[in-house]
Parts: sequence; C-alpha cells; structure tokens
Amino acid sequence: MSDSAELVKRLLKGDRRAAAKLITLVENDNNGQSAKIMHLLHPHTKKAYIVGVTGAPGSGKSTLTDRLTHELRTKEKTVGVIAVDPTSPFTGGALLGDRIRMKESCTDKGVFIRSMGTRGSLGGLSRATNNAIRILDAFGKDFILVETVGAGQSEVDIVNSAYTSIVILVPGMGDDIQAIKAGILEIGDIFVVNKADRDGADRTVMELEMMLELNPKKNVWRPPIIKTIASRGEGVEELLSCIEKHRSYLESNNLLEKRQDCRNESELMDVLSYRINKYLLDDLKQSGSYTDLLKKICEQKIDIYTAADEILKILWKKS
Amino acid sequence: MSDSAELVKRLLKGDRRAAAKLITLVENDNNGQSAKIMHLLHPHTKKAYIVGVTGAPGSGKSTLTDRLTHELRTKEKTVGVIAVDPTSPFTGGALLGDRIRMKESCTDKGVFIRSMGTRGSLGGLSRATNNAIRILDAFGKDFILVETVGAGQSEVDIVNSAYTSIVILVPGMGDDIQAIKAGILEIGDIFVVNKADRDGADRTVMELEMMLELNPKKNVWRPPIIKTIASRGEGVEELLSCIEKHRSYLESNNLLEKRQDCRNESELMDVLSYRINKYLLDDLKQSGSYTDLLKKICEQKIDIYTAADEILKILWKKS
Repeated sequence: MSDSAELVKRLLKGDRRAAAKLITLVENDNNGQSAKIMHLLHPHTKKAYIVGVTGAPGSGKSTLTDRLTHELRTKEKTVGVIAVDPTSPFTGGALLGDRIRMKESCTDKGVFIRSMGTRGSLGGLSRATNNAIRILDAFGKDFILVETVGAGQSEVDIVNSAYTSIVILVPGMGDDIQAIKAGILEIGDIFVVNKADRDGADRTVMELEMMLELNPKKNVWRPPIIKTIASRGEGVEELLSCIEKHRSYLESNNLLEKRQDCRNESELMDVLSYRINKYLLDDLKQSGSYTDLLKKICEQKIDIYTAADEILKILWKKS
Repeated sequence: MSDSAELVKRLLKGDRRAAAKLITLVENDNNGQSAKIMHLLHPHTKKAYIVGVTGAPGSGKSTLTDRLTHELRTKEKTVGVIAVDPTSPFTGGALLGDRIRMKESCTDKGVFIRSMGTRGSLGGLSRATNNAIRILDAFGKDFILVETVGAGQSEVDIVNSAYTSIVILVPGMGDDIQAIKAGILEIGDIFVVNKADRDGADRTVMELEMMLELNPKKNVWRPPIIKTIASRGEGVEELLSCIEKHRSYLESNNLLEKRQDCRNESELMDVLSYRINKYLLDDLKQSGSYTDLLKKICEQKIDIYTAADEILKILWKKS
C-alpha cells in the first residue's frame, strides 16, 4: 500500500498526525499526490459545513474565528480551521502569531487548526486550500472555518468554496465603505461589524444596511449585520445562530446542493486549467513552432497575441 | 479605420487622452481589443526602461515613486507611472488617495500616471498591467515605474516584468524579516530601507545584508541597500544612481535582452493559458462528456482529478 493510502486510512480512523501530513502533501503536490489523495478521499467527503471568514488585516478575523470555534465546541460540534494567508511573502508570520493566540482551541481534540501560505502560485494556494477542506471533511469535522485575509480576488475565490461567507468590517472606515461595496456585497452572507465598542460602529452598520437595500442580487436572503466585540466574545452566539439560520435557508431551498455543485464545477475547472497549463509548459515548450514563434516575438517580428493565436491553431488543429 | 487603430495613431503622436483611453480598453478587454491594440503597437515598443517598486502597505511606495519621478524629470527623462493595487476590493481608494498626494507630477506633461485595480481576476490584472506598460512604452516614456502593493504572488509576477526591481522595507519589522526573506530576496535588485529616521533602520539594513550574504542566487549582481526618507526626498538621488548602475550592469552583460525575452515568454504563456481557459469555458462546457463527468462528481461517483484526466484525454485525444 502506498504512503498516501496508508495516511488516508489513518485519517479516516481519526489520526490527527495523518491529517496534518496529508495537508502538507496536498500543499506540496509532488508527483500528482493530490490527485491520488483526493481519489481515495472523495467517498468520505461532503459532510462538513464550510464557513468562510474574511476581512481586512486587523479586523479581528482570528479572534472571531477562535470565539466561533469555542461557541461551536460548547454545542459539541467538531471544528476544522484553515487560515489562509496569500500575503505571506511580505507579511509572513502574522498568521502564525494569530494561531498562537488561539491557545484555548489548541489542546482540544475536537479542533484541528492549520495555516496555509503561498507556496508557488496563488492558484496553487486555492487548490491546496480546497483539498485541505476535503481532508478535514473526510476527517469528520462538522464545521470547517476557512479564514482568509481579505486582500484580493484570490481570497474571494477561496471564500466562494464556503456555504456561508462572513465578511468582517471595523468601524471608522468612513466613506471608504462606498469604494469597497462592490467587492464585499457580493460575497457576504453575513456581515459582522467587529470592534463594535469603537466610535462609528452604528454608522458602519447603517451604511452597510443602505448598501444592502440598493443591492438587487440578494433579494431572497437578506444578509444580517451583526455587531461583535470578538475580544470579549460579545455577539458571537448571535453570529452562530445567524450561520445556522443561513444554513437552514440554503437547505430548505435546495441551495446547499447548488453551492456544492458550483464548488465542484469551479474546482474541476481549476484542476483542468492547471493541468492544461502544465502540459503547455512541459510539452509545448519542446515543440519547434513554439520556439520559432517566441523567437519572432523577441525579435519584434510578431506580437504576443498573434503568436498565441498561431500556437492555438496548431494545438487545436483549428484553421 | 477602427476605433483602436485611430487611438493608436493618436497615441504615437503624443496624445495623452488616447493613452488613457487605450489603457481603459486593455483593462476591460472586450471583444479581444487588447489583441488588436497590441498588434498595432508592437513595432513601437521595447524602448522604455521598466522599474518595479514594491513593498508592504504603508512602506511609502507612492511617496518614493513620486520622488523618483521628480528626480528623473530633473534629468529630462519622461516617466510613466502605473500603480497596481490588486487589493482594491477591500482597501479601495487608498491608491487614489496616494495619487492625489502626487500633485507635483500631475501637471507635468512629461509624466503620465495611471492606477489599476482588480477588475475580474488577478490574472486579468497582470495581463492588463503588461499591456499598459506596452502602451506607455509606445507612448514614448523613457522610464516606466510600476508600483505594486507587496501582497502576494501576483505582484511578484507583475514585478517580474521589470528590468530593475526595487523592494521597500521599513524599520521595526524585527524578526519578521527572517520570515519574509524567501520572497523578497528573489525579486529585489535594489533594496530600500525607507523611513530611515525611525528606530531600527540600521538593524534592518544589517539583517538584509546578512540575508544577502547567505543568498547564493545573486552572486553576480550584489543588490545594494539604500536608506531613504522619501517624505523629505533623502536618498532618492542615490536610488536613481543605483538604478542606472543596475541598468548598465544588465546592458553590459547582455542581461537586459534576456530579461526582455523572459518577459515576452511569460506574457506569451499568460495569454496562451488565458485563451485556452476561455476556450475551455466557452466550448468545453457545451460538450456532453463534460456535463456527464460534472454530474458524476456532484453525485460523488468520481473525484475531480479523475474527471479532469478523462476530459483531458478527450481534449488531447491521448489514450
């Protein structure tokens, strides 16, 4: 039996170290190991409920995730936490510090916490994160909290894996909230105004409410806005009850399955485009026509788009 | 004559509004307009010298870019500035504020400034940025400064377009510098310790020096470390002279051409993979085998990687 098959067996029996090792394997993804692992795991997945937690740096994501984990544990739910930080080349270490803060959860066997940073490309990170979610799903966690630094499109992609997405804001952003509305309104199922003891909390809530009024997309599920003070645990019980309400809403409208299908489709497209790019890189670069065209580009005899069209004609055998 | 052909004609005559409009067109990239524009422009490019400026939020990138622009203007060089902010969905407006700060340059006809944020995917942003660089190149700017928030892999990709990459650090990062070394050492041709009047500036310089000693990659060009106080313009003249030194180094070792070729190759791969993905999305989704396999995934009869292999077999007609 291969190494990964042995690890999957141990994972399904509840072995924490196997879980950790499998996540490392999908992170590195050497020799197509992710494919092998996902092939073995897939019959054991689709049980966990996936919650995304996103917000700008300093919004209190980790503290809120910690409190939410605690709240879920008091209800005897097991929890997996995946903290994704695509900014690691420049802010590296921040999340690790956050994780140390999450002391309470660390000694609890019902909780599994893992940080993931950028190794290689952002695409690689989102694929690895999706695979890590599946590993913790097969590991038997009831809830998986995916915490991401809200810093761009790739996080939005990762958040899209979640069934319920929580977007955290903090008071005092002022008029900036207008500028960001396009991005956050689309991904949030629940909005949290954290650090609600700060000046301007009510104004932030009001501005959010106004923006949600104007948003035509969310006409069925109206995203609730909750005030929390995560550092003191205030509002976290209400947040969890909103998550449960959103879950019921999805389930009773057949939307949970739809979200799962969307997630499957976007992961399939992701793996496909990754593999095709790999073929491109590995095979195409060997071909004479590629080398010729690249040379022509460098000599400024042809532009990049025209060259790409030529290559695609050869690849697709289209005329 | 088509709209874009007319705009390109005006651009080549020095029309600022044509430059702005063309950049908007490549940003939106409707109906393959980027391809058309790049096809028309390519004979007029490859003249500008491209400098990347990257650093964490708050490191003083914009101020430094502004001062560097000013310094280049005193030497009668024309300058294009492209400020890239992939974090726009969450921090939107920051760069705009920065740009307003750059008052001095705004009224100068030798300077062209443009901010670019995420519209759609990160891949789209890096493609649009590369095309914007080519537009300002054809527009006749001597130097193009590409300023990016140092927040992840995609910026690293964008910075890779530059011939000389400047990485900005600020004092007081302490031990964190160890954590980030992998990312920054690889991309920096010149390191700037900005806000050098702060405590710990010398320590940051020392730590950087130690890391550069250990780094085996940069054994030919030893990246200089410069202390600046951008807000007062201190160290900016020295920075420019380092850029010139690095440029001479590249030119006298035939490395500039190599960097240009690399840039061409990575842009070609980018356009290729984008187009292939587009074909996948547009054509593949129509095919019966795709729909069948997706259904099987959703019913948990097959895993994503196995399904991807099946689809690729059909696509590539491999067995």
